[in-house]
Amino acid sequence: MNVGACSVRVGVVPRRCRAALSSPLPSAFSSAFSSSRPFPSSPTPSPLLATSRLGQGADVICGRTSGYRGIVSVSVSQKGQAFGAGLTGFFAEAYRSGLSSKKQVAMASKITDWVKPGDPSGEFKRQASTFRDWISDEPGAKFPPEKGRYHLYVSYACPWATRTLIVRKLKGLEDFISFSSVHWHMGENGWRFPTPADTDAAGENVVPDPVPGHEGYTHLRQVYLGVDPAYAGRFTVPVLFDKQTGVIVNNESSEILRMLGHAFDSQLPPEAASARALDLYPEQLRAAIDEAHAWTYDKINNGVYKSGFATTQEAYERNVTALFDALDRAEKHLAKTGGPFFFGDQITEVDVRLFPTLIRFDPVYVQHFKCNLRDIRSGYPHLHAYTRRLYWQHAAFGDTTNFLHIKNHYTRSHPQINPFSITPLGPVPDILPLDDEVPAAKAAVAAATGKAS
Amino acid sequence: MNVGACSVRVGVVPRRCRAALSSPLPSAFSSAFSSSRPFPSSPTPSPLLATSRLGQGADVICGRTSGYRGIVSVSVSQKGQAFGAGLTGFFAEAYRSGLSSKKQVAMASKITDWVKPGDPSGEFKRQASTFRDWISDEPGAKFPPEKGRYHLYVSYACPWATRTLIVRKLKGLEDFISFSSVHWHMGENGWRFPTPADTDAAGENVVPDPVPGHEGYTHLRQVYLGVDPAYAGRFTVPVLFDKQTGVIVNNESSEILRMLGHAFDSQLPPEAASARALDLYPEQLRAAIDEAHAWTYDKINNGVYKSGFATTQEAYERNVTALFDALDRAEKHLAKTGGPFFFGDQITEVDVRLFPTLIRFDPVYVQHFKCNLRDIRSGYPHLHAYTRRLYWQHAAFGDTTNFLHIKNHYTRSHPQINPFSITPLGPVPDILPLDDEVPAAKAAVAAATGKAS
Repeated sequence: MNVGACSVRVGVVPRRCRAALSSPLPSAFSSAFSSSRPFPSSPTPSPLLATSRLGQGADVICGRTSGYRGIVSVSVSQKGQAFGAGLTGFFAEAYRSGLSSKKQVAMASKITDWVKPGDPSGEFKRQASTFRDWISDEPGAKFPPEKGRYHLYVSYACPWATRTLIVRKLKGLEDFISFSSVHWHMGENGWRFPTPADTDAAGENVVPDPVPGHEGYTHLRQVYLGVDPAYAGRFTVPVLFDKQTGVIVNNESSEILRMLGHAFDSQLPPEAASARALDLYPEQLRAAIDEAHAWTYDKINNGVYKSGFATTQEAYERNVTALFDALDRAEKHLAKTGGPFFFGDQITEVDVRLFPTLIRFDPVYVQHFKCNLRDIRSGYPHLHAYTRRLYWQHAAFGDTTNFLHIKNHYTRSHPQINPFSITPLGPVPDILPLDDEVPAAKAAVAAATGKAS
Repeated sequence: MNVGACSVRVGVVPRRCRAALSSPLPSAFSSAFSSSRPFPSSPTPSPLLATSRLGQGADVICGRTSGYRGIVSVSVSQKGQAFGAGLTGFFAEAYRSGLSSKKQVAMASKITDWVKPGDPSGEFKRQASTFRDWISDEPGAKFPPEKGRYHLYVSYACPWATRTLIVRKLKGLEDFISFSSVHWHMGENGWRFPTPADTDAAGENVVPDPVPGHEGYTHLRQVYLGVDPAYAGRFTVPVLFDKQTGVIVNNESSEILRMLGHAFDSQLPPEAASARALDLYPEQLRAAIDEAHAWTYDKINNGVYKSGFATTQEAYERNVTALFDALDRAEKHLAKTGGPFFFGDQITEVDVRLFPTLIRFDPVYVQHFKCNLRDIRSGYPHLHAYTRRLYWQHAAFGDTTNFLHIKNHYTRSHPQINPFSITPLGPVPDILPLDDEVPAAKAAVAAATGKAS
């Protein structure tokens, strides 16, 4: 029996779980989770992993799996009053072990296994996406461009998904491709759809799965498994879904970005001439774009994750050093070209791919992922100006940024990094206005010019 | 039997622990800790908490208590190769519970119980210090000022202890009071003395307990328990120890600071006239100093701890908001007085008490304690200038600052906050040179004055 699969409500101890306990259960079972503050209450049923009597006070331990293998959030209550909470993994492991070693192996790869168990490098290795089809105008194409046919599942929190929202807006595809955002919290079952009861995830189209036929879907994984019951990859966003045939066209953000760059050009109305003319991957810049993609993807977009998910000091230091070397390189590049875009006057895919990481940098990556050699606002004047221009002057960038989802997702979905799931209040503000600077800059200018700051 | 008290070496399973295991032990016991990177290897024997067979691969889980109640660092190895690590608490709790509920209660208050179990506020409440005697010139005083009689135990990591090191130097007491620093790592038994094998804790007087009669002492707690076997308080630094009578004079940093301000004035040689004349608590400023102490202690010195150790979002937000309100107040105050010291030209206790917190702010508190509304270097020009002046221009402040101890202590002694004990590389540098500013400030000046930065 696999304890991890007990999908009972908190407060109900399944008979088979009970049989595995070495101590008798207290007569009144106390639902420690609902009264425990450190762990945000989950709207989904929490699998109850184990309970045990502690001492003579009829104390209760109960546990539920959280987003990290081997880590289970636990809480202890005494006579109904919570008095402690923490993390445990091997309490559950021990039960699993005693109960089913086969099931335990099946548990060994979850969506939140950021560092693969068994990998002594301690390094996060991103898995390749699985669905790689293409929307195309070519005769006989499996997925022709049709208004209203496709749906984009995103998370406002996710930088990869945000790329696709940005290009959707840049290319004027709002009426052509519908979208919805999942809730920011990623739990043991991956991304979940918001419910009408959720009041903590404001944002445009933060709604239950709106795709016909998906009624009752609670988690994004159901979209994947509905398409392919044998799907064994990660349940990631973005997902470009074909509502007509009920399949996933593509779940690789860089390909969706490339695809939406032109796939609907023939469908755009005459008045959308400028959107149609917009080419994010122009012929004459392709070599330069490809070259920039190579290092910005590895060192920056993915580099923040490799820094933050590292489980060894060595993996962390190697990746965070490479990240800041790449930021230094981007800073120098922008100092030379002068902007407003990465390649000067022409907006390209590079801007769409860099921005989602840069806008998250100060609010999340500096603290949560320990990417703190410098921050953007005080340490990278050109990257700061670049990020702010995109955010404040281009709706495709600014309107697709949702700091509530961004901050809450990271800080409350990674108990292996932030066990009490406390979301830092800073930095304030999430992003500076265009005409403002950090206090040190204003004071230095005042000192240099003799004017009061 | 209390498993927490098993003081066996890793690799040896005590008979009584073994009896508690539900699965047979693998024949070859693998010391997972020594090969597991996330947990810094401890030079002290690690109590082995439990081992268990996992699946069919003769896998081993073993655990040791770490610096936080209910949290035990664990590591899993398969055939000698580490493949995972994490935190658990209630695995150990369960064993404790099954074995001795009395001992479990005795374990319920440890030096590293930052938030008291049972306190639903989730808030860190600092315990009052216990030894409150005084070195005094008065006739018949129990502790007269005598050269070489007293020893100061500190940790370079600890801001409270650093106060006393600063005043020792300001008052020219280096030849009068000896001192030594513990190792930066605080484990389950509290501060420990460095051993000759330690190569990771460089610094002046980072040495084994040098006090005669303390040969063989491994932990600071032995100093406390040697003085009072019934001592039930925390084993904190600083400790002002009387080598002549073998007792603790005082362990309250604010009182040691006040005491050393004048206690040895009569002993200072004629050439130390300026040190003798230095009055850190001058009559005419006492009301202002007392008033500043009240809010800077509660909101700043202790405020960073109350923010960082909070286990609920509410406790964190309340304390971090109060902290930044107080920093804003200090910033405005310094803008008005102009420095160089808090009260203008005269150095006082307020400087000695503020500096240890401010110098740790960017390197530790911003990231580790989530005190990140702003940092000092970019967000508080006056506090930044003030901190740098003290650090770079006054040896009593600069020479008593050891960033190695500071950064390692916090990030590797609080697994409840930072489970993988990864020490962030930033910010770089720990403190800016006097004539440098953050890049945003230099760029803003260049833009305002037309000169290249």
